Amino acid sequence: MTGWVEKLDAAARSSGSLVCIGLDPDPRRMAVSDVAEFNRAIIDATSDLVCAYKPQLAFYEALGLDGLRALEKTISHIKNIAPDAVLIGDCKRGDIGSTASAYAKAMFDVWDFDTVTLHPYLGVESVEPFTERADRGAIIVCRTSNPGAAELQDLKLVGDGVEGTLYEHTARLASKWNTGGNVGIVVGATYPAELATLRGQHPDMPILIPGVGAQGGDVEAATRAGVNSDGRGVMISSSRGIIFASEEAGTYAGSARSAAETLRDEINEALEGQN
Amino acid sequence: MTGWVEKLDAAARSSGSLVCIGLDPDPRRMAVSDVAEFNRAIIDATSDLVCAYKPQLAFYEALGLDGLRALEKTISHIKNIAPDAVLIGDCKRGDIGSTASAYAKAMFDVWDFDTVTLHPYLGVESVEPFTERADRGAIIVCRTSNPGAAELQDLKLVGDGVEGTLYEHTARLASKWNTGGNVGIVVGATYPAELATLRGQHPDMPILIPGVGAQGGDVEAATRAGVNSDGRGVMISSSRGIIFASEEAGTYAGSARSAAETLRDEINEALEGQN
Repeated sequence: MTGWVEKLDAAARSSGSLVCIGLDPDPRRMAVSDVAEFNRAIIDATSDLVCAYKPQLAFYEALGLDGLRALEKTISHIKNIAPDAVLIGDCKRGDIGSTASAYAKAMFDVWDFDTVTLHPYLGVESVEPFTERADRGAIIVCRTSNPGAAELQDLKLVGDGVEGTLYEHTARLASKWNTGGNVGIVVGATYPAELATLRGQHPDMPILIPGVGAQGGDVEAATRAGVNSDGRGVMISSSRGIIFASEEAGTYAGSARSAAETLRDEINEALEGQN
Repeated sequence: MTGWVEKLDAAARSSGSLVCIGLDPDPRRMAVSDVAEFNRAIIDATSDLVCAYKPQLAFYEALGLDGLRALEKTISHIKNIAPDAVLIGDCKRGDIGSTASAYAKAMFDVWDFDTVTLHPYLGVESVEPFTERADRGAIIVCRTSNPGAAELQDLKLVGDGVEGTLYEHTARLASKWNTGGNVGIVVGATYPAELATLRGQHPDMPILIPGVGAQGGDVEAATRAGVNSDGRGVMISSSRGIIFASEEAGTYAGSARSAAETLRDEINEALEGQN
């Protein structure tokens, strides 16, 4: 059975792109009012430029049942138009075992995501219902892209086998939980030094790297710090910087394409410059 | 404007109960197949015995859009039948600022919860969109009830002002974030020593205490460890132990009432024994 990690590697190779587009629809900035229609135009304009799409569930939930119906249509459209792209549910769930099993059912059996983002705080039981699915998996939130990420994640630990910071230990746990080869980590592009540290400690785990684009992360630094020895193994994710590159009805899809193309090229140039 | 903390105190006083019922519908155990109908019967049978109801969103999301329609009906029924009970959305969200704002919109404006459970891992930005709403608020996941809670939460920290364990520091942050008096913490009943420590450090923050009932937490120990100096300030939460006390169509609502009554009385006896 092919898992999402193999699917990601195949998509990165066939598309020649490490770009992940975050589909975070915000009615205040969308040029058309229908979320599914907005996303469809973005997907149609970018499907050859990405290795992954990442709907952020909050933006659909904020629109109530209509938003979730739009998510349903969006996922179905991605599966039709871009079946090779990894479909990431950015939901950041994390709960006790019985509840985590219900969330895994929601994310995989209801929504059909290939993999999802999860919080580490409740330990292995909150992750297992996701990782025990050989054809699916999980990406553990480790070092996030927001300005206040350090508040908890940089706390220094003391004890046998837990040296370093909380985010380093989270990555260590993610690696320990990765018995099936289907676990990745989230590390923000806004912290390239931390990204380089974690890649050094975990040469093989895929890394979801949000924070380029609207959040200001440096593409070249993040790319060089994040890729594995094959020059892949990352999903460099931009949401607002691509989907709201233009907020005009006539141009938003084309502008999203241009922004995705620019990001892909910046990443690839950073890789070439490195070799 | 009355916040959820004041609402909780009023509900605990008027009902004479510190019981919170977790509404975690599981089709494999429900005596009737319709989730909204199942919940309605439980609510009708228990509304005078509780200070709070706590739907766990995972169980509704696992049933797709039908599940969310059932959640909508359940919330509407609670607001009609038990308007004084605090309505807790057990969603354990946690994301960067712009996304957290979307989740706050979902939880408060779409679902109309009084307060919600949140992960601490992303720091203050992930909490602020919830706590800046004076009439709403947040309950920060601190020390959970699951067997593996210790994996991250008991990690020992080193540094100025961060002495002790991660869960103690999380509670310290929750207290710091509690500038509006609308922040609580989650501490599992299965760890009464940790509960006593945290109550000692935070005499006033409300504590949501899951883990009695199916998870085996000791009611007497949790009650004595958790209450504030008024003998209140806690929501002692049982889900499966109450809603699946019987799995028969003819008796499940009555059995839920008996189980809730028993839990209420055990809590109150623990408090009387203490005085």
